[in-house]
Amino acid sequence: MTRPCDILIQAACIVTQDAMRTVIEDGALAVTDGTVLAVGPREAVTAAHTPAQVLDLGNALVMPGLVNAHTHAAMTFLRGVADDLPLMDWLTQHIFPVEKHLTPDIVEAGALLGCAEMLRTGTTAFNDMYLIQDATYRAVDTAGLRCLGGEGIFGFPSPAYPDADAGLALVRRLHETWRHNPRIRQCVTPHAVYTTSPELLQRCQALAEELDLPLHIHLAETTTETAQCQQMFGQRPVPYCHGLGLLTPRATVAHAVDLTDDEIALLASTGAAVAHNPESNMKLASGAAPVPQMLARGIAVGIGTDGAASNNSLNMFTEMTSCAMLHKLRCMDPTCAPAQTVLDMATLGGAAALHWPGLGQLAPGCPADLTALDLSAPNLQPMYTPASHLVYAATGHEVRLTMVAGEVLYQDGRFTRFDYPALVAQMRDVRRWVLDKLGR
Amino acid sequence: MTRPCDILIQAACIVTQDAMRTVIEDGALAVTDGTVLAVGPREAVTAAHTPAQVLDLGNALVMPGLVNAHTHAAMTFLRGVADDLPLMDWLTQHIFPVEKHLTPDIVEAGALLGCAEMLRTGTTAFNDMYLIQDATYRAVDTAGLRCLGGEGIFGFPSPAYPDADAGLALVRRLHETWRHNPRIRQCVTPHAVYTTSPELLQRCQALAEELDLPLHIHLAETTTETAQCQQMFGQRPVPYCHGLGLLTPRATVAHAVDLTDDEIALLASTGAAVAHNPESNMKLASGAAPVPQMLARGIAVGIGTDGAASNNSLNMFTEMTSCAMLHKLRCMDPTCAPAQTVLDMATLGGAAALHWPGLGQLAPGCPADLTALDLSAPNLQPMYTPASHLVYAATGHEVRLTMVAGEVLYQDGRFTRFDYPALVAQMRDVRRWVLDKLGR
Ligand SMILES: [Zn+2]
Ligand SMILES: [Zn+2]
Repeated sequence: MTRPCDILIQAACIVTQDAMRTVIEDGALAVTDGTVLAVGPREAVTAAHTPAQVLDLGNALVMPGLVNAHTHAAMTFLRGVADDLPLMDWLTQHIFPVEKHLTPDIVEAGALLGCAEMLRTGTTAFNDMYLIQDATYRAVDTAGLRCLGGEGIFGFPSPAYPDADAGLALVRRLHETWRHNPRIRQCVTPHAVYTTSPELLQRCQALAEELDLPLHIHLAETTTETAQCQQMFGQRPVPYCHGLGLLTPRATVAHAVDLTDDEIALLASTGAAVAHNPESNMKLASGAAPVPQMLARGIAVGIGTDGAASNNSLNMFTEMTSCAMLHKLRCMDPTCAPAQTVLDMATLGGAAALHWPGLGQLAPGCPADLTALDLSAPNLQPMYTPASHLVYAATGHEVRLTMVAGEVLYQDGRFTRFDYPALVAQMRDVRRWVLDKLGR
Repeated sequence: MTRPCDILIQAACIVTQDAMRTVIEDGALAVTDGTVLAVGPREAVTAAHTPAQVLDLGNALVMPGLVNAHTHAAMTFLRGVADDLPLMDWLTQHIFPVEKHLTPDIVEAGALLGCAEMLRTGTTAFNDMYLIQDATYRAVDTAGLRCLGGEGIFGFPSPAYPDADAGLALVRRLHETWRHNPRIRQCVTPHAVYTTSPELLQRCQALAEELDLPLHIHLAETTTETAQCQQMFGQRPVPYCHGLGLLTPRATVAHAVDLTDDEIALLASTGAAVAHNPESNMKLASGAAPVPQMLARGIAVGIGTDGAASNNSLNMFTEMTSCAMLHKLRCMDPTCAPAQTVLDMATLGGAAALHWPGLGQLAPGCPADLTALDLSAPNLQPMYTPASHLVYAATGHEVRLTMVAGEVLYQDGRFTRFDYPALVAQMRDVRRWVLDKLGR
């Protein structure tokens, strides 16, 4: 007796990231209705199923799609427009002057490019916050990834709304519009403590509770933010947000760099998740988040790329490498942030940061969101320990195939759902538009 | 009147790294006898030459091949065999037990794999030090890269020689054997201060002077090395080596992490070059080299990957990213280690570290050593500043073509000089050999 299935995927190695962290040499994975039906040794799984389609990937490593725990996908349109500047010069002279002219078309093109880059490098789900989020969702819907997203809420006008009231109304409208899309979930995303009032943060929290949505905020990113928060509200960012009721199991805080030991303990006690952004924190010289200490306290930590304007890529493989390197250096201990821990953060930690159970692992009943790397690449020879290669040797460009819900979205240079060459041509126009806005 | 040339290369962008750091949009480059004849706007250069062959690379960025300033290419065979361990456990339990059985075949296979990885990711020249160096040169000769290499000299037996006398004799023999190969140059490479005696170091220096060769040594890598050097020889590593006469314009010191301000000034005064290894220093938790301070003093600094056993890749693009990130973090200043400075280190700095003038730039009279990246990759859209993309966004796997001395060595997945699939098969046997030696 064999079970029917939609697709049977066969590969030289399957890294499941299941509860036992099972790694299968010469494995197979059966998918039906976008869900993993079975995963195990090739012979056994093949014998037990009657597939409609067989996808033999040969000398490939199949793993769960990576989960980007914090990004601003649309910001790819500003990739490399300005680097190596003091934060305030960078923001006020290069980013804000362009963003104030932002249109839905620019956001949609940038977000589609972000999705292309993520699919190309093995990411299948991401936690997004930006402006004119409706346009990002259209891009996500086109490209086929999973997204937990939110319209950035500020205490001042944004290109998407004239005031905070309208901003919160927009969140409700986005939730209504997109709630039946199985790959797009809504989140309430107050931007940061320094761009909102205490009242606005409380209204965000109330809305998240009312609609039963996650809440996502930039928090404790820099010592400047801490100083500003203390000056304006008399408290450091974490206790301040905790006092306003924002730190709960529905929260994900991005960055969490400038933390005291007490604040780490406080964060842990609330059940909030953390999105760690090693490359953004290094490139902007924000510092090194105390990730090993957070993990030791049981905090769920995912890894994010932050936006391409500050990173400058949305590549979770290179982000894993940077994460491992950063913490070994910060702790001056080579045993810190070992490969399996970092891989766990980029998969299961991301699922926690997106409040989306089942992501980040390949186990029966989980979504068939996966990516396959070409194991014949020179930098992956020889292979002793798959997790080591994924964190320390791979660059993400070894990816040959990326799939969400059992659907192939990228394979061997081709994006299945949209015209990538047309997008590249469009980005040339976007580039000219940006340079025009900057008067260059 | 047009000049004949062997190859005319055309591309959307040429980053020359010449004295003016000229970047040419829509450019062309004429090559004859392995040397750059002309580089400039496509129309002008095309009109001025009659090429035997035209290579129109389309939407590609052509740049000088990167120069890896410090590596142990053959160590790819140990890639990922053990990670995340204290340095001494890693060395004594995982690296040394395998290396003591080392054979020329293993070294040659590992070095050929290292060459494949470097060509695949745009590196055309490297500074190498390992055991049984003759086998590495055979691999280099097969693959076609440029290499400055040296047999690691220790004060105890190595797999290549029974004692230091025999080691120094071997250096002479290697020099004789390979001196007429235009792509392979010899170097005298005492391993480190903690594996040699003062007498042996002085004999190495005398040999380098006698044969007029560069000298390359691991120096000031860790605080442990400093403490050991002080205990054994009463001085910190830099003044100790200076006292022995080792720090001269012919020297390249690898790592240079644990330095005082006085030692930076001393190094600068000697004219020695430095090979900086950001990822190895982070992964082994050695620390962060004071690179901005060294550059400010006028020291020539190249970037190296170190060996794949400790990195775990020989990828100069990801190494550039790590370099920029590391120094911004170390200085807590986002303006530190800007993109152009890092690109200069990976090209012109490498040429200085290899004591090989003309490498690392595309200017008339320089070797036609270059690489071409596919600009249609999602992570390279849009492009405002080429240097920013090369340092912050590229991973090296965008490389479509790598050429040394006007000869294509890698193009679109294919290595022109050797059978890569056969090498992959061989590495499977090497892997089994390693696991056998480790009793796994
Ligand atoms: Zn952010
Ligand atoms: Zn080394």
